[in-house]
Amino acid sequence: MTETAPAELLVCVKCRRGLEMPQDARRPGAALYQGLQACDLPEGLTLTPVECLQNCDAGCTVALRGAGRWTYVYGNLHETSDLDVLVDGAARYHATADGLIPWRERPEHFRKNCVARIPPLETEHV
Amino acid sequence: MTETAPAELLVCVKCRRGLEMPQDARRPGAALYQGLQACDLPEGLTLTPVECLQNCDAGCTVALRGAGRWTYVYGNLHETSDLDVLVDGAARYHATADGLIPWRERPEHFRKNCVARIPPLETEHV
Repeated sequence: MTETAPAELLVCVKCRRGLEMPQDARRPGAALYQGLQACDLPEGLTLTPVECLQNCDAGCTVALRGAGRWTYVYGNLHETSDLDVLVDGAARYHATADGLIPWRERPEHFRKNCVARIPPLETEHV
Repeated sequence: MTETAPAELLVCVKCRRGLEMPQDARRPGAALYQGLQACDLPEGLTLTPVECLQNCDAGCTVALRGAGRWTYVYGNLHETSDLDVLVDGAARYHATADGLIPWRERPEHFRKNCVARIPPLETEHV
């Protein structure tokens, strides 16, 4: 079996998902992070809480990235009902060498809610 | 004078900026890239054309990034009228060590049209 390079799943834990809530209330972003902590993520995929990915109008938001990989930012995630699709998509991302999940294998939520992608630092462009 | 670390300005050259146009027409994204080539960018800021940053609904789109820096993705840029603000903002980004332009110094277009940001690979989060 080929060794898969490490990757990282960043979760914005400050995200309010557009909801009005008291300053000290538990945020949907924090709930998403905690939900993911309880999930079965592939070995080599690190789950990282971050303060803000500045996609506040379309949260919850995550980013998938890793050295040598395209970075993808996905939005409009729900902290409970989208856990399965996110774990599936993150595992598919982790299984690639360059972060490019073939379109047909990409979860529908990823197809429809990609906020942006950024090429790896290391490659030639265009 | 302190040496400023290199940074990169990625421009999506395939962007149609939401316009209907023939497949082989010159794209607004390509015009933006060519416009920037003619501008006075700081030494150490590399201009890089990329195929698609997948922010197609709110183009033209660019990303600013560099090793050890936060990556920022900005949208809703016009290929001619936003050249000045983009050059100014890119220079301010390049002048920082970590990619974080202080809010008060951030061009208004950047404040209002940040699509997403991603922390540097190298730092601790939260």
